[in-house]
Amino acid sequence: RRGAMGRAMGLAGLLGGLFLVSAVLVGTSVRHGVPRAGAELEPELAEWDPASGAFAEDSLWPLPQSLSTSPRELRLAPERFQIVHGAGSAAGPACHLLQDAFRRYHEYVFGGSPWRPRARDGLGAGARREELAQLQVVVASSDPSCSGYPRLESREGYHLTITEPVAVLKADEVWGALRGLETFSQLVHEDDYGSFLVNASEIYDFPRFAHRGILLDTSRHYLPLKFILTNLNAMAFNKFNVLHWHIVDDQSFPYQSISFPELSNKGAYSYNHIYTPTDVHLVIEYARLRGIRIIPEFDTPGHTQSWGQGQKDLLTPCYNGRQPSGSFGPVNPILNTTYDFMARFFKEISRVFPDEYIHLGGDEVSFACWKSNPEVKDFMKKQGFGTDYAKLESYYIQKILDIVSSYNKGYVVWQEVFDNKAQLKPDTVIEVWMGNNYAEELSRVTKAGFTSILAAPWYLDYISYGQDWKKYYTVEPLNFLGSEEQKKLVIGGEACLWGEFVDATNLTPRLWPRASAVGERLWSSRNVTDLKDAYKRLANHRCRMLRRGIAAEPLFVGYCAHEARGQ
Amino acid sequence: RRGAMGRAMGLAGLLGGLFLVSAVLVGTSVRHGVPRAGAELEPELAEWDPASGAFAEDSLWPLPQSLSTSPRELRLAPERFQIVHGAGSAAGPACHLLQDAFRRYHEYVFGGSPWRPRARDGLGAGARREELAQLQVVVASSDPSCSGYPRLESREGYHLTITEPVAVLKADEVWGALRGLETFSQLVHEDDYGSFLVNASEIYDFPRFAHRGILLDTSRHYLPLKFILTNLNAMAFNKFNVLHWHIVDDQSFPYQSISFPELSNKGAYSYNHIYTPTDVHLVIEYARLRGIRIIPEFDTPGHTQSWGQGQKDLLTPCYNGRQPSGSFGPVNPILNTTYDFMARFFKEISRVFPDEYIHLGGDEVSFACWKSNPEVKDFMKKQGFGTDYAKLESYYIQKILDIVSSYNKGYVVWQEVFDNKAQLKPDTVIEVWMGNNYAEELSRVTKAGFTSILAAPWYLDYISYGQDWKKYYTVEPLNFLGSEEQKKLVIGGEACLWGEFVDATNLTPRLWPRASAVGERLWSSRNVTDLKDAYKRLANHRCRMLRRGIAAEPLFVGYCAHEARGQ
Repeated sequence: RRGAMGRAMGLAGLLGGLFLVSAVLVGTSVRHGVPRAGAELEPELAEWDPASGAFAEDSLWPLPQSLSTSPRELRLAPERFQIVHGAGSAAGPACHLLQDAFRRYHEYVFGGSPWRPRARDGLGAGARREELAQLQVVVASSDPSCSGYPRLESREGYHLTITEPVAVLKADEVWGALRGLETFSQLVHEDDYGSFLVNASEIYDFPRFAHRGILLDTSRHYLPLKFILTNLNAMAFNKFNVLHWHIVDDQSFPYQSISFPELSNKGAYSYNHIYTPTDVHLVIEYARLRGIRIIPEFDTPGHTQSWGQGQKDLLTPCYNGRQPSGSFGPVNPILNTTYDFMARFFKEISRVFPDEYIHLGGDEVSFACWKSNPEVKDFMKKQGFGTDYAKLESYYIQKILDIVSSYNKGYVVWQEVFDNKAQLKPDTVIEVWMGNNYAEELSRVTKAGFTSILAAPWYLDYISYGQDWKKYYTVEPLNFLGSEEQKKLVIGGEACLWGEFVDATNLTPRLWPRASAVGERLWSSRNVTDLKDAYKRLANHRCRMLRRGIAAEPLFVGYCAHEARGQ
Repeated sequence: RRGAMGRAMGLAGLLGGLFLVSAVLVGTSVRHGVPRAGAELEPELAEWDPASGAFAEDSLWPLPQSLSTSPRELRLAPERFQIVHGAGSAAGPACHLLQDAFRRYHEYVFGGSPWRPRARDGLGAGARREELAQLQVVVASSDPSCSGYPRLESREGYHLTITEPVAVLKADEVWGALRGLETFSQLVHEDDYGSFLVNASEIYDFPRFAHRGILLDTSRHYLPLKFILTNLNAMAFNKFNVLHWHIVDDQSFPYQSISFPELSNKGAYSYNHIYTPTDVHLVIEYARLRGIRIIPEFDTPGHTQSWGQGQKDLLTPCYNGRQPSGSFGPVNPILNTTYDFMARFFKEISRVFPDEYIHLGGDEVSFACWKSNPEVKDFMKKQGFGTDYAKLESYYIQKILDIVSSYNKGYVVWQEVFDNKAQLKPDTVIEVWMGNNYAEELSRVTKAGFTSILAAPWYLDYISYGQDWKKYYTVEPLNFLGSEEQKKLVIGGEACLWGEFVDATNLTPRLWPRASAVGERLWSSRNVTDLKDAYKRLANHRCRMLRRGIAAEPLFVGYCAHEARGQ
């Protein structure tokens, strides 16, 4: 089935098969997801000092699955250092995705210092002792996916060996190469004199979970394109790979449909508050270049007030006794026109969004309006649903799933669709969001054989005073009753930033670095749980995000060498 | 005594004395701090629509004491409209403060549309029917304070009459003129076709409280100068008049002292994280031009760890049994060198900061270290303090107050200085900050005859989910047991944004518009308490702040015509 098979390959697979391991490290400290001993700082009290004896690994985020570092430091010369395609790589200069990533990470590493083409002598003569001259990137798969889209099944593992005079980054697919470039960029640090250094190191790495998402909500507040792109950068810095784009909801319909332009003409906040087809394509491509999937959510039958503005007869008219009250409820499930509309609409969505999954919502459907409507009541009788409106909801959902299936798409739904006992296809992905007893829900969903994504403990719109990142960090997604088979059905999780109180003014600092805590939980080994160690690495990581233009808020007191410029 | 006399003059005084009231309004709705009827929206549910039938007064914030508006709309032509000194004004083109304010508010009103010098025909011929051609500003006092600093006693009342063809803004002092210019700028609105309109109106206005402050903390995190200046703009938009600059604390000492440069050399986070004398002067002047006082806080004897880095023997050595433990406690109160240092230090502070008040802190002094130190114990005996370390604290505070008094400065202290029964001069201002039973504390402080500032219910660093601005808004500062005389001793309040979790990345959206709620409570009439009306005005006001470059966060779902650009 979809989803379950997409879990990252294990360390054994990595070591045994794909990579020619040729570690020539002087080899000292080995770290397998276990924090470095001697990190004595007390996060609540610490005045964290980024200048104090920084180890390269003190800023790695999320922590790799396996890391060996040597005290031996290699120097990098911004004007000479290159990121290049290695010998035997299936990818070359025609791989636009990597070409773009090489330039991007050169800039992240050196902060925009110029690179100049090297003289013809190549590696040998020009390189100095103790210098790292190149990072060679080798993509193994005969189909490196340079022009494809990341998928749930994409392989993100990589093997990074940093020795003099060249470092080698090996990955099966470009998606692993992207993750390895991020890690490499995090390993390079500056000394007190501004020299760029990297410790000789070897890293084997792969994600614990295949689905590592951020939910953004562009309906409660419109988010200008620029902020979505900035967030995609931040996601890449934290090895997230899914943007769950909750694009429309009751409050507004900013998606500009090609087939139904009235939806945004009437349903968006204003003509300035829409995403044109060009905007959408730009988001998808910007994300693709960073190994991030875009899963759009078009939530029905509830949460659809804004749809009703531009599509006549789509919503159920509510009644006040015998008279229509003038207000409208969920999508009207009894009309053929509803399904004609949905078929055309989701045909467009299926084409516009290349990802194999669409999120179909299905949460918080209120039955009150359906119950008030005499025609709906008649329909219930005819169908033999009695007074069980959950059956009507299932009837609707079933038809929508059939429509979307016919376009060869998989789908994700919120947990109520499962809770209400809708007849679901076995390849449905259930997103668990309700805060009370989410562990029990995970048990039930996976026991029924469904693939699941966990969002419940990571509703980042719920803010509170203090270091709440610890709360998100200490969640263990697989801490529920169930067999090993059941646990494998949990393919990942999502940090959700619902938009009631979030817009462009506060999105970035509210999301980062709080979401980073979720990022490490979903990427790193299960035993990476030391809060003191995490505090130090995350404080450094947030300063790095600042340098890269992400206005991530502070964890606690302290400073960054380069504070936010902004505004 | 200082402070108490500074309260704003009443409406009666305004009407009776200073202004020649020449209201020629067609006169319709009169509003005396009472919300317009018919605002039916339910804030929790409302999808607020800034385009729907906007009345000019729907965006006024804080609400003036008295407002009459007419439906008659006057048009403003950006290229012709001028803000000028009116006939009989004590201020003229030599008043740099007003010249600067005129240009600034022209830009706020018209969003940077150009103004061109008018042809020689002056007012008459050029002006069209229904056009507002000028705002004439008349400052009455023979000493308009153009080059002075705002003070607690400054008069901020004004009288604004908007009729064709000229509007007149009258104020006793330039400080009132600044407040009136802000109100005028809030009254001008754009219609659907982009025309600038203002309703014929008359406003009498003055602040309810004389001290309306924002506390910023630049020690837990350094705030780049630019963000402090941006915040001063936001303060002016909300008629705040005091920046309480909590400039140093345990964590860092960013103030670059002229007399003791080692304090920041050793005590600042880094050389990039200091405020030079030039920076400080710039903040003071930028604030002055907006009618804002800068009250610096140099908190002692506690909260001084960073002072100890650059000033030997200033802090008390703590003992572990008979041995110094290597750590340090509060300022050492038993050494003459301490007071020599403080005398020189506060002499500098008194010169650098022109405000009549200095905040001397005095909060959260832990006695543990003093108790551990044998020399301190000897001193206690000699002084006859027994084991009452509050007496030692009072001894220290008394000496500091004497020093600061000798430089002709008044001072503010945190409530513990009063609670611990220090012998206080009668002109001490007590800042009440402890959350439990602040009303009782206000009773006690004012009963003892001291002037008081309320901060306790307005600790804006304590964030929570949802519309917490309502919590700040519904505080009534005078709701405590006490005589009328006691109530007069409460001269105002402060919204405090402590810096543990705040730096340049999140300062502005965390502070605004939540602090705006405090701003209206401290400026407007006591009976301005309607939450629905406040919601609508504040939502509009926050969109206006966005347009003016303040990244104020949203109150709830909705949008602004111009979203934040930022980053």
